Amino acid sequence: MHTECEKEILKLIKPKNQEKEEIWKIAGELKASVDKSGIAHGMVVGSVARDTWVSGDRDLDIFMLFDPSLSREELEEKGMRLAREIGLSNNGEIVEKYAEHPYINAHIKGFDIDLVPCYAVLSASEIQSAVDRTPFHTRYIKEKIGDHTDDVLLLKQFSKACGVYGSDQMTEGFAGYLCEIFIIYYGSFSDFIDAAAKWHPGIVIDLEKHQAKEFDDPLVVIDPVDPRRNVAASLSATRMYEFSEFARGYLLQPSCDFFIRKNTTKISEMEFFKKIKERGTSFYSIVFDTPGVIPDIIVPQLRKSVNSVTSLLERNGFSVNRADSFMGEKNCILLFELLTDKLPDIEKRAGPLVWDRNNSEKFVSKHMGKTYSGPYISENRYYVEINRKYPTVLDLLNSDDFKESGLGKHVKKSVFSNVSILKNSECWSGEFSGFLYDFIEKRSPLSDLLLEDNKKII
Amino acid sequence: MHTECEKEILKLIKPKNQEKEEIWKIAGELKASVDKSGIAHGMVVGSVARDTWVSGDRDLDIFMLFDPSLSREELEEKGMRLAREIGLSNNGEIVEKYAEHPYINAHIKGFDIDLVPCYAVLSASEIQSAVDRTPFHTRYIKEKIGDHTDDVLLLKQFSKACGVYGSDQMTEGFAGYLCEIFIIYYGSFSDFIDAAAKWHPGIVIDLEKHQAKEFDDPLVVIDPVDPRRNVAASLSATRMYEFSEFARGYLLQPSCDFFIRKNTTKISEMEFFKKIKERGTSFYSIVFDTPGVIPDIIVPQLRKSVNSVTSLLERNGFSVNRADSFMGEKNCILLFELLTDKLPDIEKRAGPLVWDRNNSEKFVSKHMGKTYSGPYISENRYYVEINRKYPTVLDLLNSDDFKESGLGKHVKKSVFSNVSILKNSECWSGEFSGFLYDFIEKRSPLSDLLLEDNKKII
Repeated sequence: MHTECEKEILKLIKPKNQEKEEIWKIAGELKASVDKSGIAHGMVVGSVARDTWVSGDRDLDIFMLFDPSLSREELEEKGMRLAREIGLSNNGEIVEKYAEHPYINAHIKGFDIDLVPCYAVLSASEIQSAVDRTPFHTRYIKEKIGDHTDDVLLLKQFSKACGVYGSDQMTEGFAGYLCEIFIIYYGSFSDFIDAAAKWHPGIVIDLEKHQAKEFDDPLVVIDPVDPRRNVAASLSATRMYEFSEFARGYLLQPSCDFFIRKNTTKISEMEFFKKIKERGTSFYSIVFDTPGVIPDIIVPQLRKSVNSVTSLLERNGFSVNRADSFMGEKNCILLFELLTDKLPDIEKRAGPLVWDRNNSEKFVSKHMGKTYSGPYISENRYYVEINRKYPTVLDLLNSDDFKESGLGKHVKKSVFSNVSILKNSECWSGEFSGFLYDFIEKRSPLSDLLLEDNKKII
Repeated sequence: MHTECEKEILKLIKPKNQEKEEIWKIAGELKASVDKSGIAHGMVVGSVARDTWVSGDRDLDIFMLFDPSLSREELEEKGMRLAREIGLSNNGEIVEKYAEHPYINAHIKGFDIDLVPCYAVLSASEIQSAVDRTPFHTRYIKEKIGDHTDDVLLLKQFSKACGVYGSDQMTEGFAGYLCEIFIIYYGSFSDFIDAAAKWHPGIVIDLEKHQAKEFDDPLVVIDPVDPRRNVAASLSATRMYEFSEFARGYLLQPSCDFFIRKNTTKISEMEFFKKIKERGTSFYSIVFDTPGVIPDIIVPQLRKSVNSVTSLLERNGFSVNRADSFMGEKNCILLFELLTDKLPDIEKRAGPLVWDRNNSEKFVSKHMGKTYSGPYISENRYYVEINRKYPTVLDLLNSDDFKESGLGKHVKKSVFSNVSILKNSECWSGEFSGFLYDFIEKRSPLSDLLLEDNKKII
C-alpha cells in the first residue's frame, strides 16, 4: 500500500518501541499524579495519545479534567495549583502560560509538557472553552483512526517538508488534528494526495455530515465534534495552494525528497547587496525590538502593519513590488521592495467638488498663485499641482504619517520606543539573513524542491 | 437693469445699424434666390435671424426648405444643385461640406455663408434629420426672446471670455441656441448668472415641461421643440463647472474683465525647458500629421487616444501626472507628463490560478529557473518576477503595443504612416507653443482671470 520510498520514510519518522515506552512511562506517571489528587481526572491527549506523533517530537499534553460545576475562577485556581505541584514534584522547570486560559508548561526529563486544566463535560455541545474540546478530539481520532496512523505520520512529514505543518499564525498551515481528519476522510495518504492535487475554492469536508454554519475560508473542514467549527480556519489560501502544487509534484515524480525539509539558507550581506543591484529595485526596512508577547499575537500585527505601510507608500505615489515581515528573537522587520523610491517635486492634489462653494473658495484662495499648475477644474472637482509632501520613501517613513499609518498595537508601541528605518544593504543583519534569502529567492515549495539540493530530515 | 459695465460691453458687441443693414441685405437676396427657384422656400436661420449675433460675426445660415415628399436622394441632389447655383451666381467661393447631410459653404462679400437643404416639415415631431430641426429652433426663439436679445449677447460674450462658447468637440461648451434658452428660462443675464453660480449635478431645465427621455449628462436642457433631446449634451462637466466658477467670480467682483477674452500666450522653448526642470517630471509627446478630416471627428479620437495611451503607460508601471491632446493645422500632439519614466529591470507578472492545472504546469515550466523570483504562489495565483518588458517610456512608445493600444481610426492611420516620439524639450514646437503654455500653466478661467492681465476683446 505504501511505496518503497514511503516505507523508508516511515522507518525514519515512526517512533521506535524504546521511544514509545519512554514517553508513555512519563505520560502514565503524570496522569496517575492527576488522578491521585482526587480533584481531577488525568488524560493524555494530542498526538502521543493518538499514536500519531513523529519520532523525535518531545511534546506531551496532559489534560486535567475537573467537575463542570466548578466556577471558572475555582477551575483556574485549583487547576493551576495542581499543575504547578505536579510539575515541581517531577523536578520540572515550570512556566505559567496563557492561551484562551492559563496552563502550566513544564520541562521534565527532556520533554516539553503542557499541563492544562479543563472541564470534564459530558458532550462536545457543552464545552465552555476551546480546551474542553481537546479531549473529544482525542477520543474521536482514537476511535476512527484504525490502522491509518502510518498515513498520518507520512502526511505530517510531507506537510513539514512543504512548510505547511502548523496552525500557528506564522505558518497558517495544517494542525495535527486536521491531518488526522484528512486521513480518516480520504482513507489513506495517497488518496488524500490525489484529492489535494485537485483543490479549488469551495471544498467542504464534513466527516459527520453535520455542518451547521457557513464559512468563507479557503478550505472548510467541519470539526467532527463541533458542527459550527472549521478545523481549517487558520489555513491561508497561499499555504493551501502551495500544498496542492506540492501534491501534484509528488504525483508526477514521487520521491523521498518530498518528505525532506529544506535547510534554512542564509544570504550574506554581499550577496544581498548584489541581488538588489541585479533587481534594480530599492529595499527599505523598518526594524524595531520584538515585543514581549507570544508570536500568535505579534505575527498578525506585523502582517497588518505591512499592509498599512504598503497602502501608505502607494497612496504617496511609491510603487511597491513586494513586502513581507519577520519576527526574530530580538528584532522584528517590516520589509518593502520598491520600484520607485523618489518622485518629482510636483504633486497633484484633489480639492473639493466645485459645487461645494464654501470649501471651493477656501481651497482656491489658499493655493492661488502658489502652485506649479492650477487651481484647475477637471470634471467636477478642483485640483492643484504643488510641492510634493514626501519626495522620497525616507521622507515618508520618517514622518508622523508613518507612525500613525495603522500599525498593530504592540508594533506601534515598539516603533514609538525605538525604530530604525534602513535602506538597501543596511536592511541586512545576521538575524534576518534567512528571511532575506527567502524574500529574494521567493519560490513555491515545489519550485524550491525542483531547483534546490539542500535538504534535511527530521 | 444692466450694470454700467454690461452697458459698455453691449456698446462694443451689439451690431450697429450699418452692420445689420449689410447682413440683412445679403440675407434677403439669398432667401429671395431660393424662393425664386420655385422648388424650395428660403429661410434665414441662426443668430442673425434671431437678432442675437455678436458684432463682427460674419456667419450667415440660409436654409432651403424642400417638400418633405421628396426622397433623401432627390433632396440632396436638388438641394445641392440649387445651393451651388446660388453660391456661384453671387461670385461665391464655394466648398461642399458634410455634417449629418451635405451642404454648401460659400464665401460671398466677406461673409461665411452656409446654404443648407432640409425638409419643410410641418411639426418638429416629423423631422427626418437634425437640420430639419433648425427652422423650428429659429421660430421658437424669435417667438420667445422678446426684448432679451441684449441678455443673450452678454451671455455669449461672457461665455467666450470663459472659453465655454461653442458646442463643437474641441470646446464642449454652449451652443448659441443653448444661450438663448438659458436667457428665456431665467429671464435675464443676471438671473442666469445667479443660477449658474449654484450649479450642481442633477439640474434639468425644461422650458416646455415636456421631457420624454432621461439623460445622464452633466446638465440637462430639454429642447423646447424636441422632448427627447438634450440641448446641453455636448457640454462637458469640466466646462460646466468652469463656467459656474466664472459666474461666482463675476458675482463677487463684477467687472468688464469677465467679458474680455484672454489672449493666446505662447511658451518659448527655453521657458518650456525651464518649467520641466522645475516640475521634475518628464514630458513625452506623440506627434503625427493632422488627418484631413473635420475637427469634430479628429478631436474625440485624440481624446480617446490620450486615454488609451495613459492606460497603457499606467498598466506598464509608469505613473502619469496629466495628459492632453491638441489638433494643430499641420500636426497633432498627444502629450503626457510622467512622474516616473524609468523602472527597475524586474517586473512582477501574474500567472494562472493554481487550480487551473494545465496552464499552471505550462507557466511553471516556462519560467522555472529563469526568474529573479518565483514561480511563487500568493493567495490562489502564480507569480514570477522576470525581466521587465518595457523598462522606459521610450521603449513602450516605440513598441507595437503602443500602436495597437486603441488609437482612434484616423489617428492610428496617421501614426502608422509617420510618427515622432519626443521627450522633454523636444516636445516643443511653434505650432504647439500655445497649447504647451496652457498645459503647463493650467488654470481654471477664473483663476486665470485673477492672475493674468493679458486680454483681448472681440
